[in-house]
Amino acid sequence: MMALRAGPRALEGHVDTPLGLICGAGTVPFAVATAVQRRGRPVVLFPLRGWADAAAVSAYPHHWIALGQFGRFCRLARAERCRDLVLVGGLVRPSLTQLRLDWGTLRQMPLVIRSFRGGDDHLLSGIGRMFEGAGFRMVAAHEVAPEITAPLGALGRFSPDRAAEDDIAQGFALLAATSAFDIGQAAVVSSRRVLAIEAAEGTDAMLDRVAAMRETGRIRLPASAGVLVKAPKRRQDRRFDLPSIGPDTATRVAKAGLAGIAVIAGATIVAEPQRLIEAADRTGLFVVGCPDTEAQG
Amino acid sequence: MMALRAGPRALEGHVDTPLGLICGAGTVPFAVATAVQRRGRPVVLFPLRGWADAAAVSAYPHHWIALGQFGRFCRLARAERCRDLVLVGGLVRPSLTQLRLDWGTLRQMPLVIRSFRGGDDHLLSGIGRMFEGAGFRMVAAHEVAPEITAPLGALGRFSPDRAAEDDIAQGFALLAATSAFDIGQAAVVSSRRVLAIEAAEGTDAMLDRVAAMRETGRIRLPASAGVLVKAPKRRQDRRFDLPSIGPDTATRVAKAGLAGIAVIAGATIVAEPQRLIEAADRTGLFVVGCPDTEAQG
Repeated sequence: MMALRAGPRALEGHVDTPLGLICGAGTVPFAVATAVQRRGRPVVLFPLRGWADAAAVSAYPHHWIALGQFGRFCRLARAERCRDLVLVGGLVRPSLTQLRLDWGTLRQMPLVIRSFRGGDDHLLSGIGRMFEGAGFRMVAAHEVAPEITAPLGALGRFSPDRAAEDDIAQGFALLAATSAFDIGQAAVVSSRRVLAIEAAEGTDAMLDRVAAMRETGRIRLPASAGVLVKAPKRRQDRRFDLPSIGPDTATRVAKAGLAGIAVIAGATIVAEPQRLIEAADRTGLFVVGCPDTEAQG
Repeated sequence: MMALRAGPRALEGHVDTPLGLICGAGTVPFAVATAVQRRGRPVVLFPLRGWADAAAVSAYPHHWIALGQFGRFCRLARAERCRDLVLVGGLVRPSLTQLRLDWGTLRQMPLVIRSFRGGDDHLLSGIGRMFEGAGFRMVAAHEVAPEITAPLGALGRFSPDRAAEDDIAQGFALLAATSAFDIGQAAVVSSRRVLAIEAAEGTDAMLDRVAAMRETGRIRLPASAGVLVKAPKRRQDRRFDLPSIGPDTATRVAKAGLAGIAVIAGATIVAEPQRLIEAADRTGLFVVGCPDTEAQG
């Protein structure tokens, strides 16, 4: 069903056409757009009404779309000569009735409804199939702008100690076990104890929960103990939903009293790396990119 | 290290001695105590200061103890001729510095410290070994009072429909995958999507989170969709930490807009079953005991 993933070499054929970015919430879409522009390729943003940040959008060529306006999107993207598309940014799962459906979407309804059963990954790859069926090519944000992903090793001044390394290993093992269930991509582990696992609430809410549990005394840990681990789901199509971290993640991790953040190098988007590193260095957190043990296609 | 689990037959030898109940928070300790008394066996409660409900405790023979007063506990329990012990009720994980340690506990410190690394199950079985080392026998609440566990099938008027049965299967499969990590015993699943997984926050907080995500629109579900699943961890020593549900669980599940509750029959304690069933029937929830697929020793 799904086209084979395009490697960097295959992408060369289309770099003269503008890259279309369908943008959800957060700062990651703009980090990707700027990185692509710096590489000399034009971009056209398709910000999703209600999710994308209007002030940031205005700095780029763009056309607002509403979720579900597949027909309108296809017309606009073709007029802009976009062939390659990236889906990027946060998107709270909508209800079917909340979608503004146009005829282009209605023709695809059976596929949309199938996508709405099951987890997020299922939803996103279903949507990806819709775009590919209309002749577009879905590419991953980290394929068009590899510099936006976490490098291997420590990003700032601090590195994990032995206890943190134990927690990181435990956390990645847990995420590997849960990824078959198409759920969140993050957990918090301290002294090998799993304190929180992310599902529909998102990473920010999970970190706030850890901070609250510490405040109320539900969990009692030494200062600066515990690690936030984030990883892409195994076997997930990484074009659609790579995990991301940014300065706000570091602030929340510090507020939760944790020692640091561990992500998978090359498979995690780092939004605003300079501000993230500053926030981590200031609060004494480590941020580390770990080797990707999953074989990649 | 651990003595073999005593089956119901083996328990017969000690039914003339009072059963010692070390009581944490909640109503489950009193449900167990009353069920054991009804069977004609005397009980002595050892309520934990700061956790057990003082008003409820006063209805039974009891001696207050502080967490960590292992020496004091041993003296009192021997004076009361208790040989069999049940650990029951909620216990927020304490910090080591919060424990009031006496000499009996200090002698066991290496064991205590080992217990504090790793998950809850690890902690509880470490504590269990301390009691067994002092000559007591740890028994499960559901061995001395099997009538306090969930029966097979629907507990009230309502039963799960086909969609709910799918969610129940998905939820139990998820809990089986995570139980190797010694974490929570509950999750919420709707339309096969995992909305929340419990770790250190507890079932109540997880249900409140689902209610809040619905309120803010982070998740959008039809009315009465989704299931709370609870299961004991696999390979866990069930003497120490069976999952439990009660009337308050039903109230929270209703508030989260879910369709019902699924537990493992015979391996889940039901506190105040009459009030639970009333609450479920009143709010249209199903509460169902499912077959235990894990081979039991």
